[in-house]
Amino acid sequence: MNTHYLDNSATTRVSEKAAEMALTMMRENYGNPSSLHKAGVNAELAVEDAREAIADALGVQSKSIYFTSGGTEANNTVLFGAAEALKRRGSRIIVSAVEHSSVYESAKRLGELGFDVQYAPVGKDGVILSDELEKLLTDKTILVSVMAVNNETGAIQPTEAIAKRIKKLSPDAVFHVDAVQAFCKMPLKPVKWGVDFMTVSAHKIHGPKGVGALYIREGKRLIPLLFGGEQQHKIRPGTESTPLIAAFGEAVREADVAENATAIRALNAYATEQLRQIEGVAVNSTDAALPYIINLSVEGIRSETMLHHLEQSGVYVSSSSACAKGKRSYVLAAMGLPDSRIDSSIRVSFSKYNTKEDVDALIAGLKNGIETLQKVRRQ
Amino acid sequence: MNTHYLDNSATTRVSEKAAEMALTMMRENYGNPSSLHKAGVNAELAVEDAREAIADALGVQSKSIYFTSGGTEANNTVLFGAAEALKRRGSRIIVSAVEHSSVYESAKRLGELGFDVQYAPVGKDGVILSDELEKLLTDKTILVSVMAVNNETGAIQPTEAIAKRIKKLSPDAVFHVDAVQAFCKMPLKPVKWGVDFMTVSAHKIHGPKGVGALYIREGKRLIPLLFGGEQQHKIRPGTESTPLIAAFGEAVREADVAENATAIRALNAYATEQLRQIEGVAVNSTDAALPYIINLSVEGIRSETMLHHLEQSGVYVSSSSACAKGKRSYVLAAMGLPDSRIDSSIRVSFSKYNTKEDVDALIAGLKNGIETLQKVRRQ
Repeated sequence: MNTHYLDNSATTRVSEKAAEMALTMMRENYGNPSSLHKAGVNAELAVEDAREAIADALGVQSKSIYFTSGGTEANNTVLFGAAEALKRRGSRIIVSAVEHSSVYESAKRLGELGFDVQYAPVGKDGVILSDELEKLLTDKTILVSVMAVNNETGAIQPTEAIAKRIKKLSPDAVFHVDAVQAFCKMPLKPVKWGVDFMTVSAHKIHGPKGVGALYIREGKRLIPLLFGGEQQHKIRPGTESTPLIAAFGEAVREADVAENATAIRALNAYATEQLRQIEGVAVNSTDAALPYIINLSVEGIRSETMLHHLEQSGVYVSSSSACAKGKRSYVLAAMGLPDSRIDSSIRVSFSKYNTKEDVDALIAGLKNGIETLQKVRRQ
Repeated sequence: MNTHYLDNSATTRVSEKAAEMALTMMRENYGNPSSLHKAGVNAELAVEDAREAIADALGVQSKSIYFTSGGTEANNTVLFGAAEALKRRGSRIIVSAVEHSSVYESAKRLGELGFDVQYAPVGKDGVILSDELEKLLTDKTILVSVMAVNNETGAIQPTEAIAKRIKKLSPDAVFHVDAVQAFCKMPLKPVKWGVDFMTVSAHKIHGPKGVGALYIREGKRLIPLLFGGEQQHKIRPGTESTPLIAAFGEAVREADVAENATAIRALNAYATEQLRQIEGVAVNSTDAALPYIINLSVEGIRSETMLHHLEQSGVYVSSSSACAKGKRSYVLAAMGLPDSRIDSSIRVSFSKYNTKEDVDALIAGLKNGIETLQKVRRQ
């Protein structure tokens, strides 16, 4: 049976080039970047090379890039580190109601620790309501964290516009953008946009799981989450994961953002057109969303039931986000979708490796599922 | 020129089996362990398999093993997490004066945050003075953190004896052992010894850099360092680095602790005997130390100078620890060594891949270095 992997926003297959780079770092270039001898220097060069690749993709200086163990660590570093660094100036922290759990739960924890945490609402399209967010901005606001693209719906957030409002109304606040689902899928310009911190990750773009990076605008301060050695200017100590970092760099260099966007847009259009013709299917993502993600609901069939049905024909999708296994999506709830629609939601997510055949298998699986599973329900 | 890699306590070459396992996880078994479909389940099985390997090596249940991004994160998780969880019971935290920077600097930070941090001294042999540590134990002590083996000298610490004293004098305290340099190099028995938390890492034992594990005794509580998804019982959220974790498991399964210990003991004896015959060389590690590490000083020649001299003949060693690049070793200082001896110290560290030829190259390089470099000094 062929596999139709349509769960690329959960994670992706590592590209051949990236995997081979990791292998070289494990087998040959295995020194510790902190070691002073040649084996150390060579490892450090590979790390710096990857740092440049990520910096280039974001249009920033490579010294402003810090490697972490992934998006979760990078997001936590900013949320806790900026809150700690700025707590004397104020206590208000604003995040959107649809952030990834690593921002959402960190914000919740900061609330428990005494910070004044506010959640900016989203509209029916899953896009943050900038006017509502603006109402929350005060001169005591120290941190705003908003994602570039939502992981469940693909909704693109108005980060640049939000940055402008923050600068005007909360000049002491820093602005963090979790760009895990956007990186290498749309242009990101943290410097131009006025973003202070940006989180990216490797495993959503055909790099390996276990490595991410954090952009820190020059002069912006964070109290580190980890304490230890002198690595990465003490912002992120610990021996660098050279295999993963070098592979991350390779995956970023390989990504052709514009070319992939064109291909994925076509694939998305091909899928959406057919999905809209299936009775009982509602597409929850809007046309304005990033084409890499389609969120849909199948009337009367629970997400997991449909997921396992699709799996039987080799089609792999997700029931909302992979990180929230078994819990009702707070993202779709924030969009005002009724529970029945949330509980029957499926996330389809593409990568450059997907083809029309994958979409065909998805459509066939959905149609077939609706027929057989609804029949079961009627019996 | 042949390479004689004698810096294995900084990091090791990844074994073929471990590297191939990582490759398989990147190329084929690339699902997200949190995904509900087969690709996710297969990835989760690989993670569980690795968890069992680490648990078996420590003689603990696999559910008590949590994967982290390395030793630094695991050590930070315990220091900050246990301090936070137990702060209502007391504020005293005790670490030894020779801990790795990831424990040492975390303790220092906890001191800044208001905890009463005390440092247990070591003797001339680098071994913690248990009687002195005992004097620091009070009923307000909440955490004691001690390493199993020192990373600069190989000194084996009396963790089991310390555990007994803690239990007697500070019944509310938890006991953490940083076993990064000991894991798979000597028997570790956290359950029998009465250890509550134990840190281990992959890249010191021919696994890849970027993954470690933390043993948490059942019932012992920690406030997590990271907040986010539901992974690893929320103790350590974030998508698991499946390639590194599976490779870690492979490296652990491959390690024959007893067989390696015999080989390394012989190599250490072969090296030590020759080192003791070189005029101007003082061995700082004692015979009781773990044979994987020999710390030595070369009279009148700075560590970095000798390091770069040895490098010219392909011999890679370390100037104290790789993590403290350029700083004077506080470990050797705590042992009471004079500055001249500290500033000329070199760490030689073995792995199972080393041979007598590596030792011969080291000895030749040292002799040659003493001759040429001291001549330079005399001119």
